[in-house]
This record gives sequence, C-alpha cells and structure tokens, in this order.
Amino acid sequence: MSIQQQLAEFQSLKTDLFQKDFLLTWEHPTEQIKAILTLAETLKQLHQGGYSYRAFDTGLAISIFRDNSTRTRFSYASAASAMGFTLSELDEQKSQVAHGETVRETANMISFLTEVIGIRDDMFLGEGNKYMREVGDALTDGTQQGVLHRRPSLINLQCDIDHPTQSLADLAWLKKHFGSLENLKGKKIAMTWAYSPSYGKPLSVPQGIIGLMTRFGMNVSLAHPEGYGLIPEVVAMAGKQAKESGGSFETVNSMEAAFEGAHIVYPKSWAPYHVMQQRTQLLQKSDKEGLKELEKACLANNAKFQNWECDRAKMNLTADQKALYMHCLPADITDVSCKAGEVSAEVFEQYRIPTYHEASYKPFVISALMFLTRLQNPGAKLEEIVKRAKTLSI
Amino acid sequence: MSIQQQLAEFQSLKTDLFQKDFLLTWEHPTEQIKAILTLAETLKQLHQGGYSYRAFDTGLAISIFRDNSTRTRFSYASAASAMGFTLSELDEQKSQVAHGETVRETANMISFLTEVIGIRDDMFLGEGNKYMREVGDALTDGTQQGVLHRRPSLINLQCDIDHPTQSLADLAWLKKHFGSLENLKGKKIAMTWAYSPSYGKPLSVPQGIIGLMTRFGMNVSLAHPEGYGLIPEVVAMAGKQAKESGGSFETVNSMEAAFEGAHIVYPKSWAPYHVMQQRTQLLQKSDKEGLKELEKACLANNAKFQNWECDRAKMNLTADQKALYMHCLPADITDVSCKAGEVSAEVFEQYRIPTYHEASYKPFVISALMFLTRLQNPGAKLEEIVKRAKTLSI
Amino acid sequence: MSIQQQLAEFQSLKTDLFQKDFLLTWEHPTEQIKAILTLAETLKQLHQGGYSYRAFDTGLAISIFRDNSTRTRFSYASAASAMGFTLSELDEQKSQVAHGETVRETANMISFLTEVIGIRDDMFLGEGNKYMREVGDALTDGTQQGVLHRRPSLINLQCDIDHPTQSLADLAWLKKHFGSLENLKGKKIAMTWAYSPSYGKPLSVPQGIIGLMTRFGMNVSLAHPEGYGLIPEVVAMAGKQAKESGGSFETVNSMEAAFEGAHIVYPKSWAPYHVMQQRTQLLQKSDKEGLKELEKACLANNAKFQNWECDRAKMNLTADQKALYMHCLPADITDVSCKAGEVSAEVFEQYRIPTYHEASYKPFVISALMFLTRLQNPGAKLEEIVKRAKTLSI
Repeated sequence: MSIQQQLAEFQSLKTDLFQKDFLLTWEHPTEQIKAILTLAETLKQLHQGGYSYRAFDTGLAISIFRDNSTRTRFSYASAASAMGFTLSELDEQKSQVAHGETVRETANMISFLTEVIGIRDDMFLGEGNKYMREVGDALTDGTQQGVLHRRPSLINLQCDIDHPTQSLADLAWLKKHFGSLENLKGKKIAMTWAYSPSYGKPLSVPQGIIGLMTRFGMNVSLAHPEGYGLIPEVVAMAGKQAKESGGSFETVNSMEAAFEGAHIVYPKSWAPYHVMQQRTQLLQKSDKEGLKELEKACLANNAKFQNWECDRAKMNLTADQKALYMHCLPADITDVSCKAGEVSAEVFEQYRIPTYHEASYKPFVISALMFLTRLQNPGAKLEEIVKRAKTLSI
Repeated sequence: MSIQQQLAEFQSLKTDLFQKDFLLTWEHPTEQIKAILTLAETLKQLHQGGYSYRAFDTGLAISIFRDNSTRTRFSYASAASAMGFTLSELDEQKSQVAHGETVRETANMISFLTEVIGIRDDMFLGEGNKYMREVGDALTDGTQQGVLHRRPSLINLQCDIDHPTQSLADLAWLKKHFGSLENLKGKKIAMTWAYSPSYGKPLSVPQGIIGLMTRFGMNVSLAHPEGYGLIPEVVAMAGKQAKESGGSFETVNSMEAAFEGAHIVYPKSWAPYHVMQQRTQLLQKSDKEGLKELEKACLANNAKFQNWECDRAKMNLTADQKALYMHCLPADITDVSCKAGEVSAEVFEQYRIPTYHEASYKPFVISALMFLTRLQNPGAKLEEIVKRAKTLSI
Repeated sequence: MSIQQQLAEFQSLKTDLFQKDFLLTWEHPTEQIKAILTLAETLKQLHQGGYSYRAFDTGLAISIFRDNSTRTRFSYASAASAMGFTLSELDEQKSQVAHGETVRETANMISFLTEVIGIRDDMFLGEGNKYMREVGDALTDGTQQGVLHRRPSLINLQCDIDHPTQSLADLAWLKKHFGSLENLKGKKIAMTWAYSPSYGKPLSVPQGIIGLMTRFGMNVSLAHPEGYGLIPEVVAMAGKQAKESGGSFETVNSMEAAFEGAHIVYPKSWAPYHVMQQRTQLLQKSDKEGLKELEKACLANNAKFQNWECDRAKMNLTADQKALYMHCLPADITDVSCKAGEVSAEVFEQYRIPTYHEASYKPFVISALMFLTRLQNPGAKLEEIVKRAKTLSI
C-alpha cells in the first residue's frame, strides 16, 4: 500500500489512547489494535523511505527495566529518538525506588516534563502488572491534583501477564507475511512450550500471543506438557475471544498435535504457572534453600520434555511442511546456544531472517504507541508528517 | 499573570549570568534571583500550555552525580531535554576522575561541545563546593587558552554548603503560594532540625534555606538541638542578610519555639557540623573503626531527640494552626518509611500534594539557569519563544 | 581559511564513505583522509562561530565501550549530539552480548533505527578489529536481507590495531600547528615508547601514528627498547607507505636517537607485542596464575627502561630544542600521576595546553566521520549548513 493509502486507512480508524496507558492488548478494542498496526506500518514505511517521522520537539521518555533487555531496550530508545524525545533511564540502583508509598511519590517526581514511561517488570507473578497500575494511579492522581501539567503514558515493555509490544510486533509481521489481517482467518497457529535448559522464564510471551491472536479468527493451539499451564484467567479469556472472532482455541499436551497442519509455529520455553507462584512466595520470604530446591526440581522436570524441540520432523507435520516459524529471540538453539534447546539449528537457520523481520516491527509498534498516547489528533499529525516527507528528498 | 506580563517583568530585570556558574545563591544579587524565579515561572507556564521552550539545537548537558539522586537527576534531565541539549552523564566508575591534576584535564576533555555541567557533590564538608570551583577554574583556563570555544557553565546540584536549585524551587513555590515575593515579608519560616533514624545527611538544605529566605524580609527561625549547628559562616551571613532585608533571624533550641506563630515550617534532619567534620577526617584516613564508632555515637545522640517530630500538636502552635509544611523529599515519615521520623504520617499526608508542587518547580529553575547562563540575550530569546508559542496550537 | 574556502576545498575532494565503516586509516585513500580533515576543521570553525552543524533530525548513535574511556566517550557523545543523533550506550552487563552467533543477531536487533555504531575493543590482540568486522558483516547481511532499511556505519573508537579517531585528531592538530599538510613534508616525528609503571597498554596509538603519518612525507622514527616491537605487518606497511609518500621510516632502540633533530615527539608507553600475545592466550585460558607472573615479569622488564622518560635533556636534542610534544592523554607524568613516568612534569606542563588543543580535534573528527558515512551528498549538505550559518546570528 502507498503511504497515502496507509494514511487514509489510519484516519478511518477510531482511537482513544490520548494520555492513556497501554498495558494489556485485550483491554483495547480491535479497531484500536488495527490502528496501531496501520500506524506502525506507516512509520516503518516512512523510515524505509528515509523520512523522519519526528513529532515532538522535547520531552522525556523514561524507561524502567527491572530485568535485562537488549531488543526491547533498543526498540524503546529508537522509538524515543524517532519521536523527538530524550531518553532517560531510571536506574533503581542509583535511585532506591521500591513499592508502596515511594512509588506514588517517585512516579510524580520523575514526571514533571515526561511524556512516556516504559516499564519492564516481568520477574514475579502478580507483581509486574500491579506495579504498573500503581505507577499509573499515582500519575492520574498527580495530574488531577495539578502537580503534573499532563499525564504521562505508560507502555508495558513486558510484565508478568502480557508482553504487548512483542505480540503486536508479531501480529504486524504476520499481517505483512500473509498479506492482511483478513488472510489470517482460519490459519492455525501453534503456540507451544519448548524445552530449554533454563528456568524461570516468564509466561508473558505465550499469554500475549494467545491473548492477541485469538481475536483475528485464527485457530490457536496452545501446547505444553502437563503442569506447564498459563494463568487460568488468560487461558479462559483466549477461549472466549476465539469464539467471538470466529476462530478456535484449544489446549493440547503434545507439540506434534499442535504442529499438525499449523501455518505458524511459535515454540518457546516458559516456567509452569504454579512454579512461578511458588518462586514468588519463596523470593518474598528470601528462602534461598527453597529456591535452590525449586530450581533443581523444575530443571529435573523440564528434562523429561527434551523432546519438545522444534525440529525438521515436527516441521514436516505442519501445513505443506512449511509453517512460518516465529520467536521473540533470543532462542535456545540446540548445539548453538546450548546442548539441547527450543529449536534445532537447521530449522532456526532456515527461519533466522524471518525472525529478524518479526523483530523489526517492535520499534515501530512502540513509536505508534507513543504517537497515539501523546497526540490528541494523531490523524492530523500523521497527515502533516506525510506531507512533509513528500516535499523532501533525503 | 499572563505570559506577556511575565515576559515584560523578566525583561525589566537585569541579569549577568552569561557563561558563568551558579554555585551559591548568596553570590548573586537579589535582582538576579528575582529574574531566575520569573523566568522559571514563565517556562513552567509555557510547558503547562503545551508549548516547547526549546532554545538550542545541539550541545551537551553533562551531569556528575557523586551521590544518589532521583529528583534532581530527573529535574536536570528534564531541563536539558527542554532546552534542546543532549544529556550525558559522567560516570566516575567508568572514567576514573579524581581530584587534583586530573580534574583540570578532565574538565577540559569533556567540554569541547558542552554547554552546561551539573554537579552533585555533597558528601564531605569542605569538599563539594571546592571541587566545583576547581572544575570552574579549569574551564576558565581552557577558555582563555583557546582550547574551549565557549566556557561551559556549572550548576550546583547540591554541595556541602548550598543546594541552590532546591532553595530556589522552594522560594518559587512560596512566591506562588503566598501570591508574591512582597507577600513573604514579615512571614515567619521555621527551618528546623527533625529526628531521623539515619545519619550523615548533608547540611546544604537548611543552609540553602536560611541563606536564601533571609533576603526577602522573612522572619527566619533556625531550630536544632544543641550541638546540631550549621557552618558558622553561613549562619552569620544569614543574620546579616535578614537585617538588611528588613526581616529577622534567630537560632533556637526548640522545635516548638520555632513553630510558634510560624507561617511556614521546614522540618528536616541533618548531621551536626562537628560530626560531619570528624566524618570527613575519618574518611580521609579510611578509619573504618572510627567511622563506625562515630555513627554509633551520632545515632545514640540523635535518639535523644526523637520528640523533634513535626506532628499535629506542634502544627497547632503555628499561625492559625495551619502553617505551610515544606520538605525537599523524600521525608522520613513516622510509621511509613520508618518507626519514628521527621514528620507524622497525618501531617505529611495533609501536605503531600503541596510538597509535590514545591518539587515541581525544580526542573523549571534548572531550565532557567541553563537559559540564563547559555544565552547572551535571554530577554530577546524568551520573547521569540513566547511569540512562537502564540502562533502555534498543539 | 574562511568557511567559504574550507567548503570549496571540501567539495573538491572525492569521498566514498556513504553507509560504510571506518576501521583503519590505511584502508582509505589519501584524498579521503584529506577530506575528513578539511571537514573536521570546517565543523570546528562553525562551532567556534556559534553555529550548529546539525545534519539529522533523529536516529540512534550507539556506542559499545569494552574498556574504560573518558575522552573518546565524550567526543563520541559530543559528535552524536552535534549531528542530531540520540546517544545510546550498549552496556554489555545489561545485555549479555558475546562473540559468535549472538553478535550476528544482536548487531541487527539494535540497528533498526541506528545510523552509527562506535566501538572500543582494544584489550586483546587479534580480537578487537575482528569483532568490529564481525559486527559489520552482520549489518551488511541484515541490510541485504532487507531486515535493516539502511546499513549503519561502524566507527572504530580504538581496537587492537588502530586508533583512527586519535591519529586523525593528531594529524588535524599537526596540520593546524604547522600550517598545512604540505608543510609536514620532511618533518621528523619521533613515535617513541616511554616508561610507565603500568602494564598492558594497547599498541593501537603507536600503530595508528606510524600508519598515518608515514603517508604525508614525514620522517617517522619509531623508537622502543628491544622486545617492545609492534605488530610486524603494521610496521612493514608503515615502511612501504613512507617510501611511497617521499618520507622515511626507521626503527631505533634509543629514545635519544629518535628525538635527535625531531620536530615532533610522541612519547607513550605500550606493552610489547609478544607480551600482549601471551596475555591474550592466558586470558582465554583464564590462567590467573600465569597472568600474575606475566605482569610481574613485564613490570620488572619495564623497570629496566625507566630512563625512557621525555625530559628536558632529551627535548634539547630536538630541532631547535623545541619539538612539539604530543600525547593522547592521560599521560603518566613523573611526580604528578606517578613516581616515574612517560614525561617529566616540567616538559608536560610546558606542552599541557598544546595537548589539549590536540585532543580538541577528536569530537570534530568523529563528527566528520558521521557526516561522511551517513550522508549521500555531504558536499551539498555542508553547503546548506554554511548558508544557514550565514543567515543566522546567535
């Protein structure tokens, strides 16, 4: 589609994100999700053409990373730069921020000239998303009290429940790969657990995938060994959404069953829900002995499922033997990053470049979220940017 | 006041800060202090209206934090972004900067395209301000030698003597709260020591307050237990200033006496001057045993004054029982952040939002200092920015 | 020269750096080196006049520092700011980047909106430059695969072989000091080892100097104690280049011999090539005992050459007894930064300001490299910037 058509499509879609937060995809109507995708694609197209889509003169884009990150960190930095914001990282070691009273105060103290705050807090079940809402409430309160001139927007850069910038980038890539969202109807996607020699990986990616893909008429098959279930409420919601969108949702306990006839496969390791619950409790009690035992037990249990690897044989079960392989990266690749992992070296290498394309949407998705949450009239601003691009040569 | 009136008032005030440093408020004439406040208010008003007051295209704003900071760190980052500067933090762990020869060299090496350097160095009595002047001398020398095209300006982000961006933000908030600087005349402000379970807090906040508020005709009452005195020279200067401005200055050894009839109270813990002196000496000798003993003795002595808490009973002693409570934050709040602290939970909660308003002036005060120290004709530039704002809608 | 003349000279020189890397000066034709110098001088002149030479609206400038740095870190930050890029540091502690598979992936993941990546990796012989090329290959691949819209450029901020932004800054300073590149013909430069109480200093500075200065008709004298040789291939190349440019190149084992009649002296410590080789091997085997012994042996050997100090007596051997002293800083100064070092306090103090001038070129050299590697038509863009400067007053 031409930039002009993209612009028209974007302007036809209703959005309501101004000065709001983006924490879970399923809190937002489908039309809004479509607008985010269209906008992200348009911004990507502008960048590809060599045009700046800068929309702001100044302002802080703060990031708070409570866990390591490369991909999302640089996606966020890229989006901030592209928007015209100054990146400012809140390093909690240098600042001593904690939960409770302090969050309310700190959220206001860092926000006087802040436009957007991106947060990654994915370590503890029941904690990350809650923390984000605590920050959000403090910002709302500060704005209502006149302390803040404008309410900054929060962007969830991965919590214990969802990883929305990942799932939206994944969906943008699927839209591109299959030609349209319409074309995704009836396609089977296998979101499956895969073996990894590590432990404690968050549930947010599989939850994000089933929470988003079930809204577009896809047949979503969630596969994991018994005992590796996700948050029950998220699974229930996925089922409900699938029904409403004319797709389907199933949970199976076999990677092969999920791969059978799939058009898309997403094999990725995660920790079982109940293990994450126990882990959170042990961490709160600082029970080091208990944590060690839990890790040992969990790794031993994992080891029973080493055959949950995405290899050639399993890929041969998929539609025309050539399903699209997806991963949020970095993948645990057998014989490359570990002895036995989520995916065989051969399958990964075949799909390496497609996974890079998948990742390439994330900075533009984050840009789109910044654009929509900070501009009162994003359609008019995008029109202005497109016009500006047309009058320029690089 | 309208933006236009603010601009006119600012333009009527003489300033002389171009390419100079801002280290202690009392080194600057009152007219200059007034100009800083007026400018800070104008920039705040512009931001509130949604207008950018960006004044520069490029250039570094360096920060050097020799102590943890959240509020001032983000205020500085916000101001740098708003001005159009690129924030660059000098991390001494990664750079190995020390006193002496190295300061002279490093100050020049980081400054070739630098506009402003903000420094926090508040840990050791007799050190922080001295270090800033060492850096300043090196910059002057480098500029005179033609090494630097322009002399960067230093902004004191808290030293052992003063915390000028805090005291100026406090004064801006008082001006707003009471309607004008004129209205502050005759008002009683109680700058009092308060109990805290911690040790080694710098003297710069109380010194900054008595060093600034005594210039505006206020009745300043400094209260602390015996032995908790401030730097004698600063106290003497405060007395002299009070006399000149038509106000008064007293030191008392009772929180109640200071609160009696006060219109403003500022209860805040600090370490005794002589303890800070001993501590600096012990640190220089790396005498760990001595430091432990000093801390123990100091905390034991502090504990005698647990009743120096700003509670409802003491607030009832103030003018109309409703003095304005101030704090630079974070406060040690009894039963919230500690078992016994500077302020009761009830009093703090009542004034929580006002303390946030107080803090909200800091990024604009720092913006104003950057504006005045980097622009040869700040009045003309502000006029240009106000005009630009008028022709724009967000 | 006037800005207008500088512009004309720059436009007369052919460059071919668009979306390419700058890793070793000797990979680039002399005309290109001249263009870099002319551009760096022009940008410096613009900055001195108070004019912005900002050329970009947005985009990331990433830096990867695998070793401490102050000078180069701030030079890079300054250049990024001046160009209009957002600085983003890749902190490998927070990101867990390693060699191998991961480099290929990470290079792409951080580069979706990135314009330039500066890398310092100077610790291990045979590693740093290799790593840069690995990153470069990954970027080329990602661009060819359509993953990256544009190929970011790499700038070598010091590797095991060359330190090109240092040697180019040094050459710019020599050009300024002696009036022109033409005037450097026939001048003798002594690049000599000097004593330092430290160990393991990289070879990249002396290699960079002999690799660049031999191209401009200078008489380059490399001096070091026996056993302190540089990478043989670099030394051989320097000899070849000297011959081609009408200059000369010699290696001597006496500081005095090198200083004799020299117009420029560059006394600087480094570790012997074979020691660096052994060290790299020991580090790869994590042989701590071996490393300790190597350090001990190396320092003991160094100590035999304490008389390799640039003092007044040796300076008196130089042309008119007043050769220009150069250093990349920080220097090990006898009785200042150590008991016995590379240079006497008296000589250093005499040349302190000239070494600052030398350093002052680095941010402009890096700016020039960013400008040339990111703009398809740098001559036209510079013309636009010069015009813009003429119509502006600060």
